Amino acid sequence: MTTSLQPGATIGILGGGQLGRMLSVAASRLGFKTHIFEPGSNPPAGHVAETVTTASYEDVDALRAFAQSVDVITYEFENIPTSALDILEAIRPLHPNRRALATSQDRIIEKSFLNEIGLKTAPWAKVTDAASLEVAIADVGTPSILKTTRLGYDGKGQARIMAPEEASEALAAMAGAEAVLEGFIDFSMEISVIAARGTTGEVACFDPGQNVHKNGILHTTTVPAQIPESLRMDAVLMAAKILNTLDYVGVMGVELFVTKGGLIVNEIAPRVHNSGHWTQAGCTVDQFEQHIRAVAGWPLGDGTRYADVEMLNLIGDDVLRVPEFAKTPRVQVHLYGKAEAKPGRKMGHINKVL
Amino acid sequence: MTTSLQPGATIGILGGGQLGRMLSVAASRLGFKTHIFEPGSNPPAGHVAETVTTASYEDVDALRAFAQSVDVITYEFENIPTSALDILEAIRPLHPNRRALATSQDRIIEKSFLNEIGLKTAPWAKVTDAASLEVAIADVGTPSILKTTRLGYDGKGQARIMAPEEASEALAAMAGAEAVLEGFIDFSMEISVIAARGTTGEVACFDPGQNVHKNGILHTTTVPAQIPESLRMDAVLMAAKILNTLDYVGVMGVELFVTKGGLIVNEIAPRVHNSGHWTQAGCTVDQFEQHIRAVAGWPLGDGTRYADVEMLNLIGDDVLRVPEFAKTPRVQVHLYGKAEAKPGRKMGHINKVL
Repeated sequence: MTTSLQPGATIGILGGGQLGRMLSVAASRLGFKTHIFEPGSNPPAGHVAETVTTASYEDVDALRAFAQSVDVITYEFENIPTSALDILEAIRPLHPNRRALATSQDRIIEKSFLNEIGLKTAPWAKVTDAASLEVAIADVGTPSILKTTRLGYDGKGQARIMAPEEASEALAAMAGAEAVLEGFIDFSMEISVIAARGTTGEVACFDPGQNVHKNGILHTTTVPAQIPESLRMDAVLMAAKILNTLDYVGVMGVELFVTKGGLIVNEIAPRVHNSGHWTQAGCTVDQFEQHIRAVAGWPLGDGTRYADVEMLNLIGDDVLRVPEFAKTPRVQVHLYGKAEAKPGRKMGHINKVL
Repeated sequence: MTTSLQPGATIGILGGGQLGRMLSVAASRLGFKTHIFEPGSNPPAGHVAETVTTASYEDVDALRAFAQSVDVITYEFENIPTSALDILEAIRPLHPNRRALATSQDRIIEKSFLNEIGLKTAPWAKVTDAASLEVAIADVGTPSILKTTRLGYDGKGQARIMAPEEASEALAAMAGAEAVLEGFIDFSMEISVIAARGTTGEVACFDPGQNVHKNGILHTTTVPAQIPESLRMDAVLMAAKILNTLDYVGVMGVELFVTKGGLIVNEIAPRVHNSGHWTQAGCTVDQFEQHIRAVAGWPLGDGTRYADVEMLNLIGDDVLRVPEFAKTPRVQVHLYGKAEAKPGRKMGHINKVL
């Protein structure tokens, strides 16, 4: 696809969470409508979409009708069943492509891909049972972390192994799912690059942000990351290599560890990313619009950073602090329209211009 | 109303054009849903609203159902029939209030109000027929401009009178409607102040912008306006006086002429205003969010200007230049999702960070 969508076209988005919501707003800025496909009821993205389909990814008729009603399909989360993608892709273009999805849906495929193109990851080994876990621990060492290869996010589906005798408990936590053992990395910080690639192959990266996690969930992203210029360049080149190799179209989040031996890829997410929310307050064109531009075949926008920004996630009851943030100078409040503030639930974020 | 709306509340917006569209997006940022009431089909605001009611302002049942479904009512244009307001206001709070609407709906009421609170306007006289027009011309002089007192915008319902002999032709253009004759003002520029007032009475003004019109329609707004600091202060104080006197809640656009004798009020608009679109690229909180904050009973946000910006309207076929603007650094593109680019129709705008 090298032609660009015309004004009035409809972008189909799989997933109706906060990322879909902010993608939908960005699409409106460029004159597009959106159609959200989401199994859950009352999705946050639905409040700002032209159309919402509430149906499961097993509902073939709903998938077909959705695809036929839109001009291009994208997604806000990567765990879409293959069977649904088969149906959708036969009807309309899908960006980012299947290879990007398949790569990021499975930690082993992802790590193998990254290693194959010459990028470092933490030492890792595949684990399917007690025997392979024993081999993996001998190989990767402890402390290490056992993760299901699929469907994990925000610290879910993970178990730490501080010493070999914790192996069986960790394995039990995987509940029979295929897993990967990852060695701990001695890193000074985590950074992420929000990278975009357009249909003509042009690549643009936002300035790397510095991430701090709390209880396995992103807490803050601060730009600029406190790293030397050479690492900044390395990070951007690594991201570009990933996108180019995958013939990627759209925005990707690339998480990297800064170590004494250079940058190590933590993981990639084939979508707009929580660590890129700061772009709403620091750039002329934010990550959401950049993604919409890419999947719509538009030229990428100007994502040059013009301000120092700290993004703070509002998790669960953090949202009770909104009245305070609403009064604070240089602070942008973003709420996701979620009804209930459950523990660990991302309710919104703030961008503070520093 | 001194309590603030809770997350998940719904803001009802009368009018579904581009202003309603951008208000709806701003509402989503703060976790609110919107319900658009608009007589026309396929309104631009409907693409990003939770609910759209397509009905006329004479449809009593539709008005009642709309009001009952929302928590507060605001509007994106001022020419709402009084009968509709009576129905709506009996059910839910309306911001800005009836007095602001009544004042701005009628040029004579507006000018009288401004003069009463000590603000200068162009010399003016009421015109109902040929005899009163003759008196008015004698009083106000020529060149002057005859305008219908109600329902005029973007140069519509206006006729210039360069010399007394053009009087009858100008009067015919009013088609029997009550009119006002306004004297020409010798001004060096037009500026506008986008002012906001919250439910607690706090007032915040964005930095005045400098407006250039073309064919009676706003062409560009540039900030900062090239005026001395003293005039900037005058402009802001005048706007604050208007809002305070009207016990106003929301954002208002105040257009002013810069003359040798100081500032003269051209007109006021009790809503977000085209000359405030630059705030999307130059402030942490833009005029749309400021309006939503005010009507929702939130504290006003930080509207401090951090960049120099030029806003350029895309009128009719100007929209064909979008591919060029999409590639231009420091340019934000905003399209309104209108299907057809008619001459004189506002299709979008760009904000260029200077």
